[in-house]
Amino acid sequence: MPTLKKFTLLELTKDLDVKIQGNPDCMITGVSPVHQAQAGHITFLTNPQYRKYLPDTQAAAVILKPEDAAECKVTAVISANPYFVYAKIAGYFDSQPEVTVGIHPTAVIGEDCEIDPTASIGPNCSINDHSKIGARVVIGPNCAIGNYVTIGADSRLDAGVMVYHRVNIGKRCRLASGVVVGSDGFGFANQKGTWHKVPQLGGVEIGDDVDIGANTTIDRGAVESTVIEDGVKLDNLIQVGHNVRIGAHTVVAGCVGIAGSTNIGKYCMIGGASNFAGHLSVADKVIITGMTAVTKSINEPGMYSSGIVGAVPNYEFLKNNARFHRLENLMQRVKSLEAAVKEMTERE
Amino acid sequence: MPTLKKFTLLELTKDLDVKIQGNPDCMITGVSPVHQAQAGHITFLTNPQYRKYLPDTQAAAVILKPEDAAECKVTAVISANPYFVYAKIAGYFDSQPEVTVGIHPTAVIGEDCEIDPTASIGPNCSINDHSKIGARVVIGPNCAIGNYVTIGADSRLDAGVMVYHRVNIGKRCRLASGVVVGSDGFGFANQKGTWHKVPQLGGVEIGDDVDIGANTTIDRGAVESTVIEDGVKLDNLIQVGHNVRIGAHTVVAGCVGIAGSTNIGKYCMIGGASNFAGHLSVADKVIITGMTAVTKSINEPGMYSSGIVGAVPNYEFLKNNARFHRLENLMQRVKSLEAAVKEMTERE
Amino acid sequence: MPTLKKFTLLELTKDLDVKIQGNPDCMITGVSPVHQAQAGHITFLTNPQYRKYLPDTQAAAVILKPEDAAECKVTAVISANPYFVYAKIAGYFDSQPEVTVGIHPTAVIGEDCEIDPTASIGPNCSINDHSKIGARVVIGPNCAIGNYVTIGADSRLDAGVMVYHRVNIGKRCRLASGVVVGSDGFGFANQKGTWHKVPQLGGVEIGDDVDIGANTTIDRGAVESTVIEDGVKLDNLIQVGHNVRIGAHTVVAGCVGIAGSTNIGKYCMIGGASNFAGHLSVADKVIITGMTAVTKSINEPGMYSSGIVGAVPNYEFLKNNARFHRLENLMQRVKSLEAAVKEMTERE
Repeated sequence: MPTLKKFTLLELTKDLDVKIQGNPDCMITGVSPVHQAQAGHITFLTNPQYRKYLPDTQAAAVILKPEDAAECKVTAVISANPYFVYAKIAGYFDSQPEVTVGIHPTAVIGEDCEIDPTASIGPNCSINDHSKIGARVVIGPNCAIGNYVTIGADSRLDAGVMVYHRVNIGKRCRLASGVVVGSDGFGFANQKGTWHKVPQLGGVEIGDDVDIGANTTIDRGAVESTVIEDGVKLDNLIQVGHNVRIGAHTVVAGCVGIAGSTNIGKYCMIGGASNFAGHLSVADKVIITGMTAVTKSINEPGMYSSGIVGAVPNYEFLKNNARFHRLENLMQRVKSLEAAVKEMTERE
Repeated sequence: MPTLKKFTLLELTKDLDVKIQGNPDCMITGVSPVHQAQAGHITFLTNPQYRKYLPDTQAAAVILKPEDAAECKVTAVISANPYFVYAKIAGYFDSQPEVTVGIHPTAVIGEDCEIDPTASIGPNCSINDHSKIGARVVIGPNCAIGNYVTIGADSRLDAGVMVYHRVNIGKRCRLASGVVVGSDGFGFANQKGTWHKVPQLGGVEIGDDVDIGANTTIDRGAVESTVIEDGVKLDNLIQVGHNVRIGAHTVVAGCVGIAGSTNIGKYCMIGGASNFAGHLSVADKVIITGMTAVTKSINEPGMYSSGIVGAVPNYEFLKNNARFHRLENLMQRVKSLEAAVKEMTERE
Repeated sequence: MPTLKKFTLLELTKDLDVKIQGNPDCMITGVSPVHQAQAGHITFLTNPQYRKYLPDTQAAAVILKPEDAAECKVTAVISANPYFVYAKIAGYFDSQPEVTVGIHPTAVIGEDCEIDPTASIGPNCSINDHSKIGARVVIGPNCAIGNYVTIGADSRLDAGVMVYHRVNIGKRCRLASGVVVGSDGFGFANQKGTWHKVPQLGGVEIGDDVDIGANTTIDRGAVESTVIEDGVKLDNLIQVGHNVRIGAHTVVAGCVGIAGSTNIGKYCMIGGASNFAGHLSVADKVIITGMTAVTKSINEPGMYSSGIVGAVPNYEFLKNNARFHRLENLMQRVKSLEAAVKEMTERE
């Protein structure tokens, strides 16, 4: 294992808007969850359920809100947003492999490419003609980049990312392994019972600061481009159909499917395993809870849900499932009752 | 960007069953959606909602149905199936990278392979022993092909496709990046609490004209083969279990899961995010709407659905979800009411 | 095709706890399903529905339970667990490509790696610094392994598997093509509307005898590691979020999503396309039926379900779906009826 990392609390917090209560020179050697904090580590407290661990923590320092500072017997890093402060501090302890600048000799580079000399192109990659790779971009092993692709400065593609032709990726993006960007949208015209491919002529436009999780797929547009705006965060195994637009700073959890031409607004939060039908429009600041089936446009901000959630013992489920399939019948029986009771009441 | 493509309308339609109203020699330089048609472009009209854009279109030509021709002030390409005509014309404007025939020097080819001299094998590919690659087949970068594989003429594997041993792929197929064909089916025998792998001895048989979307997985059969018949179109992130058969010309949208040994008929349409239990049989010409859970065989053509769709405000959902879990109780209450009303009626 | 494999029944069963009724020296040349058994093949009978095929089977031998032996006119291999015996015998007929020991010349190996001389590293792989590859490990073509990774003896990574840094994989594991292990968990801290990455400092710990299906993704932990215990079997296209723990000998079918920090017990069986919210705890020996949405912890063994399953004709579905969205209203009407009937009864 590599040498232990070690920083004073002051070094770790020098660019952050925090107040330190205690010893700013204490040495920090790692991070821990609050309920398992180890000596020399820094931890954070955001969830009130974990406050009980605070008095006895072994941590060297705890990042917390002003209202929790009084209870903290070790050094406290006080912030209105402890999780954000934690995110910035944790970056110092990241153990990602160091990057070797330059083009690995096994990489295959096409004609007329512009590859910034500070970029790193890993083993067994290929980059097709006319593509531009920006400053400090890292392309991991076994990536394949099509032609006329641009990748902005400081973006990072992990091993095994596949980018088709005519895709633009912004700055500071991160694409995890197995991501596919620019595959053909699912478009077929039926002629006498057989399906004929509709060429997918659009591209994919990905903004700055976009994260895309492992094995997520983003199809190219049919005519115009599929668009992922700045700051969007996509988790793993998400399907983004052709001509979809996802608005800036929207987060989408894993296993979500978004059918073609659906337009999701900015600052939305989409729960895992939700699915969107095609050609819908979802307003800004919409929250979709997990496993929701969105089949109509949503025009107002708010929290939306569908489906049946909550696993119950199978025998209960079987009864309720059967009842569901006869809900219409139940309704008719209630209507009959209503009519009978009304008649009786009127007769009295 | 590469040179602009440019064709006369006559060139574009020469093999198509269309009637031209207007100028067959007009130059076409691209395609546009009907509501954003640009000068020099060709567009198409199929959705009646977009008919309002027809009178003012800037397009050079519009592909449309006979009944819409009268309203078209620019050149019209008249067809009973405008979307199919569009699909064929759009092919002229496709900007896919040109293919370099031959085997890239970084590709690793096994023994006793037959690779047609017109095929293209991309950088960093490997093809294992005894495999046959047909005429004009294109295998993109970073593909790995197992042994005893055959790939028929004019098929195309995009970058990063993984094909296991003893898989047969027909002619004119297209496999998008990240597709896996021939991985082991999910078969384990339990012996005293631990699971033992059941060897998966079958292969995968893929017919002609099959499209498979990005990161879709197709498992090999347990004893017999998994079969995808001619003309099937699979979207992205679909799971096809071992011994599944999908009938000819069936289309399956993204994020669908098909458990082992299920047999789906010909000319079916399967909506996105639907799931099929194993060992089912689905008739020909069945339509399954999106997000349906198919747990029993379907013996008749028609449109089938399940689940709860339609996202509603979360507070409504929570109430209905809770009610659902007490549906059995609701039914019992209705039965009591029915008995009470019956008794009262009889007493009168 | 390669030479036909051929064994006597005695050879095939020599390590198995079985009783042979008939000819132990009969030659076996392959396996078949019971309803399609071919001459010279061995087959097995576990499902009572297939017992009808037993009297007329063309198979050379049938693996079956004691109670079925009397009806078997060919050689019978009698076992309390015929499917397990089949699994072991089928292994003799597996046609997986032979493995070439050693490091392929196109593979790129980092510094300070320990690669057992009996391991096989395929074409166009890369292994980053300080990683350890055990005895008889097989790494297929186009895999990328990060630094400080360990892979235990007899494990196998098929083509195109991506393993990030600081991941430990046990012995006798098998990872199918497209698997991603160790990608960053989905953690972002919101500061003034934009999302900031929370570094994912944990690793992934995978036990012995773990199988992972094609294109499944397993994220690394946020601080501690994501853990997959011994004997776990994961199917294709599963998402395992950061800090998840899956207990020993649990099986998970395809298309399942497990959100972060959820803890699934040992000896569980999780049906396909089920989804788990985050931070849940599921007891040992829990069975979750397919397509279930698990949103609360489950503390007792048993079979659990949710959702609406069973596709019905679309017009029925539409009615029931609409009724569901007015369940609360239906309940209120039933309550009114109950009040009315109660009043009438009391008045009488």
